This record gives sequence, C-alpha cells and structure tokens, in this order.
Amino acid sequence: MSAFTHRIPVLFQHCDPAGIVFYPRYFEMLNATIETFFAEAIGWSFSEMHVHQRVGVPLGRIETDFHAASRLGDVLDWTLQVDRVGGASLAMTVRASCDGEARLTARPTLVLVDLDRMTALRWPDDRRAALERHQGGQTP
Amino acid sequence: MSAFTHRIPVLFQHCDPAGIVFYPRYFEMLNATIETFFAEAIGWSFSEMHVHQRVGVPLGRIETDFHAASRLGDVLDWTLQVDRVGGASLAMTVRASCDGEARLTARPTLVLVDLDRMTALRWPDDRRAALERHQGGQTP
Amino acid sequence: MSAFTHRIPVLFQHCDPAGIVFYPRYFEMLNATIETFFAEAIGWSFSEMHVHQRVGVPLGRIETDFHAASRLGDVLDWTLQVDRVGGASLAMTVRASCDGEARLTARPTLVLVDLDRMTALRWPDDRRAALERHQGGQTP
Amino acid sequence: MSAFTHRIPVLFQHCDPAGIVFYPRYFEMLNATIETFFAEAIGWSFSEMHVHQRVGVPLGRIETDFHAASRLGDVLDWTLQVDRVGGASLAMTVRASCDGEARLTARPTLVLVDLDRMTALRWPDDRRAALERHQGGQTP
Repeated sequence: MSAFTHRIPVLFQHCDPAGIVFYPRYFEMLNATIETFFAEAIGWSFSEMHVHQRVGVPLGRIETDFHAASRLGDVLDWTLQVDRVGGASLAMTVRASCDGEARLTARPTLVLVDLDRMTALRWPDDRRAALERHQGGQTP
Repeated sequence: MSAFTHRIPVLFQHCDPAGIVFYPRYFEMLNATIETFFAEAIGWSFSEMHVHQRVGVPLGRIETDFHAASRLGDVLDWTLQVDRVGGASLAMTVRASCDGEARLTARPTLVLVDLDRMTALRWPDDRRAALERHQGGQTP
Repeated sequence: MSAFTHRIPVLFQHCDPAGIVFYPRYFEMLNATIETFFAEAIGWSFSEMHVHQRVGVPLGRIETDFHAASRLGDVLDWTLQVDRVGGASLAMTVRASCDGEARLTARPTLVLVDLDRMTALRWPDDRRAALERHQGGQTP
Repeated sequence: MSAFTHRIPVLFQHCDPAGIVFYPRYFEMLNATIETFFAEAIGWSFSEMHVHQRVGVPLGRIETDFHAASRLGDVLDWTLQVDRVGGASLAMTVRASCDGEARLTARPTLVLVDLDRMTALRWPDDRRAALERHQGGQTP
C-alpha cells in the first residue's frame, strides 16, 4: 500500500529569525500528520481517542534527521508509513519533502496508553489490522 | 566540569488535552536550554549570533527518548553536556528530570552555519575551547 | 464583495488541558487567516513581503471577543473583511465559527512597516485598491 | 498594593522572520504572567484549578495595544493589576515593558468556569478577597 501523505504549507508562525522553520514547529507538523493519519487512514480521531475513550499515543522515542532547511512559502509533503506494530507500540517513518527535495526523516515510536492510569494498552485487533495495512508503504 | 543546568516550570501552555507536556513544547524547552547555555556558559548569545553575526546553530540530527510524562506544575531540571565538538558540528546530551525522576534524554547534533549562504562554518577557536570545557560533564 | 474565508481544523496542538483551544493558538490561526488572505486575495505573499521586500504587517492593536469554546475535532470557518484602509494602517474584522456557531470576533489593526527601519509605510496604490475591494464583505 | 510583576526574556522561540516577537507568543507570555500571578499572589495554581478542581479561567474578551516591537535578547517586565472582580469575571490590565519602554498593554477579562459544564462560577470568597487586594496597583 502506498504511504499516507499530508500537505502542510510553511507559514509565518513556523519560521524563526533565521527565516527557516524552527524545529519545534516541525514536530507540530509531524504530530498533525500522525493525527490526520489516524483520523483519515485508521478511522480513529484524536478527539474520539482522547475525549471519549481516554486513550492517547504519546511518543516513547523519536529519531530525526534534518536534511535541508525549509523556508516561508515552501509547501511540505509529509509521508507516513508504518514500520512495525508491536503489542502497545507503533514504529513509523515520517518524511517531509518540498518539490521532491528531502527536508527531514523522522522515526517516531508511539505507545498506546490509558490516559487515566498512564499504562500501556494492547492495540485493539481492528486498529492493529488497519495499521498493518499501512506497513511497507513506498514513499514518493 | 559539571553539566550546565537550567530550570523550566511546566506551564499551561506546554500541556495537551491529556494534561501532559506536548512533545513539541519539550523541544521548545530544549532549545531554550541550548540558547541559555550558549549565552551563559559560552558567552555567545543567540541575539549576537543571529542578528549581528548572521550565524546560527540549526539541528542536523536529534534522538530523543521519553522516559515518563510531565504534568502541569512539575518543575523540570534540564542538564546539558557537550559530547563532541567537530569541525562545524556539536554533539550534546540534554536531559530533563523532575525531582530526580528522568523525563527525557535527547542527543542533538547542531551545526554552525552561515545563515546567508546556509553553509557550514568551522567553530571559532575561542568558542571551540569554551565548548570543550563542558565536555564529559556529570549529570545529577 | 463577500468576505474572504479560510477553514482550519482544531488539532491536538491547539488544545489545552481543559480540552479547549488555548487562546494563543487562536491568534496563530488568525495570523494564518490574514497570511492566506494576503497571498490569495491580495496576491502579496508573506514570503514576498518579508524576505524579498523587507516589509511586514505587525499588529498595532487588536480587540477580541471569545463567544464560545472550541474543542478538538471542531472545524473552524474563519472570515475576514476589510473595515478601513488608512495611510499605513489596515483595520479588519475577523470571525471564527463552527457549524454556524460564533466562536470569536477579532478586530485587528495592522500597520505596513519597513522592517529594517521599523517605520510606517504608505500602502502601494495597487495593494490599497486590492484591499479596498474586500471592504464591507458580508460574513455568513 | 503594588502591581504583580513577572520577568520573561525574549527567546528565539518567540521571534518571527522579521526578528521581532510574534504576537501569539506575547499571548503565551501574558498567559504565563496570569498563571504565575494566580499561583504566587492568589495561592491558587493552574494545576490545582484545572486538574484537581476542574475549574478554569478562559478569556471572555481582550483588548491589546502594541506600542513597540520587542527583539531577541530583550528582557520583558510584565506587570498585572486587577481592575474589577465581578460575579464570575475578572478584569485586569497587563503591561509589558523593556528597560522602561512600553511594549504592550492588554486588558483581558477572564471568567471563572466549571470545566465540565462550561458554565460560569462565582469567585469563592477567599479568592475574591485575594484578587481584590491586587486592585489599583501602580505600574512602574
């Protein structure tokens, strides 16, 4: 299956005094990509998760390589593929590029947790199956 | 030499609907720690760098492990030690803890760049010497 | 002429521990609406302004009324109409609603400035004419 | 009684590509000032409010005048005085200055609410008395 894609323009609010994207804003975009992936590709919105079911997907770990700077007015194409669905974990590769030029590659590992107890939860079978359908996606 | 330390309270603006620190806000705190380290320990403020000398220290790479969630009202103790000063690069280990409990460990690699050309610059000798004095710091 | 409209979903990154949009994030959305208005309706992108022409449109003043809280998963419809184009100033009314329910009304006044001298600049005639075409728009 | 004061340095994360504080970041600083005022001057932390008592103080309205731009490296002195304590409302004047030069004046009106029902709550008598002790403060 092809990778999930999500387009985000670089806005004024993302840029620093050097005129390039400030990296905490990249992590906001990455979270927006993961949030949109869950809503659109898995059918499980963050609103349903957090508000109604009291579960969340905080990061356990993330590695990020920044390949080139992004500037005001660039349009970033984010792609997300699932690498591995563990018991409660989810390893992904998320990439951002602009006009085909790589900007960053991130490898986040999320953990499904019970927000009230902050304990790990096993992925429900239907969600696991949906996540596994996004494994091995080819990025453009 | 002991590690550089910087204390940041967890404010309302850092927390998400799950009531815990949203990870892009951790990266804002990490950047504030690095910025304060440069100003106070190296004597080279981001204002002097960016505005007057047109140089910057964007990230080339960062690995981060999140050990436990932080909550509204926690006070985070950030520590920074220099691992290696390369030609233009700077590898660090930055940790955050609360009352001695580890919250995250980040290993950022910065690159000194000419902001107008976006090319790597060699660390000036005096800055390099100052950075090397913070190598091998012991974190609490 | 009808008001300029711009749709922004309420994402996880916009919400606070109370589960509602944190007001500084509303001001990020408001800025994104103004930025998109300049790019799409006036044909003057913030990138062209800030990077190439060294002009900007900082706020001189803003009044905001918050009518009702917005929650994770809401989709906000932002509308912008021009109230008055002064010598260097621009008064607007910007509203956000969700499914027709008013969420906030903001009345920002921008000032066109030379970024290097931080002095007010007269609107160029063609930009002024374009802005005036958005006066008196009816909001939905 | 003198006004409550709170000092916040302008960090890299607050500044935009024009090299000045981006106004949504001013509202983060304003919120941090109000949050610190409640914790230190009123003895009622946002953590106690939001997490334990499920009450909050969202904005009903805010007017803000921006007098001059703030730059990377500036240190802002925020002052807060209470103008009026209503049944459920709280009108304040909050000012930021740098080395005595006025940067902004904001007049926020907060409303005490029950977060679960989003209905207004009357200020408890002891909190009201504490707030009233900060009325009429003289700003420097």
